[in-house]
Amino acid sequence: MRKSSGEDGVRDEGSLIERFRNSQIRLVRGMRALRIASGDDAAIWRPSPGCETILTCDWFLEGTHFLADRHPADSVGWKCLARAVSDIAAMGGTPQCFLLSLAMPKARASRWLREFLQGLRSASKALRCPVAGGDTTRRAEILISITVVGECRAGTAILRSGARRGDAIFVSGRLGEAEYGLKLLFGSKRRADRRDRRLRKHLYPEPRLAVGSWLANNRMATAMMDLSDGLSSDLPRLCSASGVGARLELNRVPTMKLAATDKKKFDATALALNGGDDYELLFTVAKHNVAHIPKKIAGVPLTRIGEITSSKRVVLIGEDGGTMPLENRGWDPFR
Amino acid sequence: MRKSSGEDGVRDEGSLIERFRNSQIRLVRGMRALRIASGDDAAIWRPSPGCETILTCDWFLEGTHFLADRHPADSVGWKCLARAVSDIAAMGGTPQCFLLSLAMPKARASRWLREFLQGLRSASKALRCPVAGGDTTRRAEILISITVVGECRAGTAILRSGARRGDAIFVSGRLGEAEYGLKLLFGSKRRADRRDRRLRKHLYPEPRLAVGSWLANNRMATAMMDLSDGLSSDLPRLCSASGVGARLELNRVPTMKLAATDKKKFDATALALNGGDDYELLFTVAKHNVAHIPKKIAGVPLTRIGEITSSKRVVLIGEDGGTMPLENRGWDPFR
Repeated sequence: MRKSSGEDGVRDEGSLIERFRNSQIRLVRGMRALRIASGDDAAIWRPSPGCETILTCDWFLEGTHFLADRHPADSVGWKCLARAVSDIAAMGGTPQCFLLSLAMPKARASRWLREFLQGLRSASKALRCPVAGGDTTRRAEILISITVVGECRAGTAILRSGARRGDAIFVSGRLGEAEYGLKLLFGSKRRADRRDRRLRKHLYPEPRLAVGSWLANNRMATAMMDLSDGLSSDLPRLCSASGVGARLELNRVPTMKLAATDKKKFDATALALNGGDDYELLFTVAKHNVAHIPKKIAGVPLTRIGEITSSKRVVLIGEDGGTMPLENRGWDPFR
Repeated sequence: MRKSSGEDGVRDEGSLIERFRNSQIRLVRGMRALRIASGDDAAIWRPSPGCETILTCDWFLEGTHFLADRHPADSVGWKCLARAVSDIAAMGGTPQCFLLSLAMPKARASRWLREFLQGLRSASKALRCPVAGGDTTRRAEILISITVVGECRAGTAILRSGARRGDAIFVSGRLGEAEYGLKLLFGSKRRADRRDRRLRKHLYPEPRLAVGSWLANNRMATAMMDLSDGLSSDLPRLCSASGVGARLELNRVPTMKLAATDKKKFDATALALNGGDDYELLFTVAKHNVAHIPKKIAGVPLTRIGEITSSKRVVLIGEDGGTMPLENRGWDPFR
C-alpha cells in the first residue's frame, strides 16, 4: 500500500511531517522562546512573564472559504494564517506561534502543497508568527484549521464588551475591497491572477496588528473586534456584547473608489456595509480620548464612523440625514 | 434565508455559539486563571509562572476517524477531546483548556449536537480541561479539530528524543483493546451500544495523565510518547527521534484476554502490536531507575517490554527466543 506520489509527493504521514519540519526551520529561525517539538507529541512554548495568552482558532475549508481551482494555492496559505492572526490583532495582542491542522488528498501533495507552504511561510514571516506544530491527515477535500497563540500584557486585552454610551466608533482602512475582489473572482472563469491588485485584499488580507497593539498599549479603545463578516453583521455583535446601541453615519464610512466601468456593477456603500473578509478593526473610543487617535497608524487610516448609544438599537444615518435600522446582511455560514 | 431547524436547532452562527456558551458555563465553573472570552474574537488564558505551555492539535473527522451513524454522538464528544489530551499526557503535562473547531450539517444541529456536547462535557470534566473558545461553520460532514493547551513545570516535559542505549522500555495498560472494539463495531451492522464493555476503550479512551505527570515530576522517563497508531508504528518513531534501536520482547507485551469464542477471530498479539487508538503511554527509563518504577500508577499497570539498543533497528524477540524485524503495521492515513 505504500506508494510515492512523485518526487515531491507524500509517501506517508511521516514524510508529510518532514515536509513541514523543513519549512519550519526557515519559519522559526531567530525566534525567541519557542522550543519546537514538532514531530513530538506536542509543541512547547514559553509564555512571557506578566503576559496573558490569547487563543483563537479558525476554519479555512475548500468549497466553503476558498476554491482550490480558483484561488492561488499561495493565497490559501497566506490567508488561512492572516485571518486567524486578525483575531489576535482584534484583542490588541501580538501573535507568538500557530498550529496547523491540514487534511488533503494525495493529488494536492505535490505542487499545490509547495505553493501553499510558500504562502504560509510568507505570512508567517510577515506576521512574525512561526509554526509550532500541527496534525495532518488524508481527505478528499482540503481542510485547514489554524490555531494562533498570541500574547498581551496582563489586563490590556481589548474585549468586545467595553463600549459605553457616547463612545466614538472608529474603523481602520477602507471597507468593501475584499468583497469586491471576491465578486470579480466569481465573475471570471479562470484561476485568479495573484498579481491583480483589485484582488489583493481578498487574496492577501493584512491583519491590523500595529493598530491593535497601539490601541491596547495606550489603552485608547474601550471595545474592539475585527471585521470578518461585514460591518452590518459585526457592529451589532459588538453592541450586543457591550449592551449598547449605535448610530452609524453612512457618509463617514470609508468606502472604496470604484472605476467608472465598475460603478454600474457594484455599489461601494453596499460593499462597505455588508462585505466580509476585510479584517479591518472596528473599535470604540471614549469621548475624551478621541482627540488622541491619530489619522493613521503604520500607514493605515483610522476613521470615525459613528457613536455608541444607550438605545440597544443599531441605526444608520443616511446621506439625507434620515434614520433607518441597520440590516444585518453580512456573512453567516448557517443562513 | 433565516430558518430555524427546530426548537433545539441552530438558526445562525450566533445561536450555535450561544449553545456552546451555555455548555461552557458548566464546563469552566471553578477553574482558576481562565478568563473566557468566547463570543469575543479570542480567548484569554493566564499561564502559570515558571511553567511552559504545551500545545497540540488533532483532527477528528467523520468518515476518517468516526462514523456518525455507528459511533454514539457522546463517544465522539468524549473521544475527540480525550485523544488530543493524550498528547499532553505524553509530554508529562497537565491539560489547561481547549479550543473546538466544529463544522457540521444543519441536520446534526439538534439531537446529535446535544449528545455530542454531553460527551464533550463529561470528558472536559473528567480531564479538568475547560473549553476556552472555538470556531463553527456549516459543512456536509462533521469535522472536528481540537487544540489542547497544557502546562508543565519549565524543563520537565518528556520528549521522544531522550531514549539512550540500555534504557528499559515500558508501556502502560494493556494493548490492543481499542482495535478489538473497532473490529467488533465494524463486524456489526447496528449503531454501537455505548454500554458494551468490549467497546469501551474504543469509544471512551482514557488519556494516562496520572502516569505521565508522575514520570515527569519524578524525572523518571528519558523519552515518552502516546500509542495512537499502534506499537509497531510508534516504537520506531520514538527510536528514530532518539537515534537508537530497540529489542521488543513479545512475551512481555501486555495483551488482552480474549473470550474463547473470540480466539478464532482475533489474534491478541497482532492486536497489541498493530492496533491503534489505545492512548497508552510508551516510555523509556534509565537502567538505574527501573527499580523505582511502580507496578501501577492510579490503577494503571506499567509493564517493561524491552530495551533500547544502539543498533538503530527495532527487532522483536519472538516467544521462541528468535529475532525478527518489527514490521510497521499500524495506522497511517497516507498509506
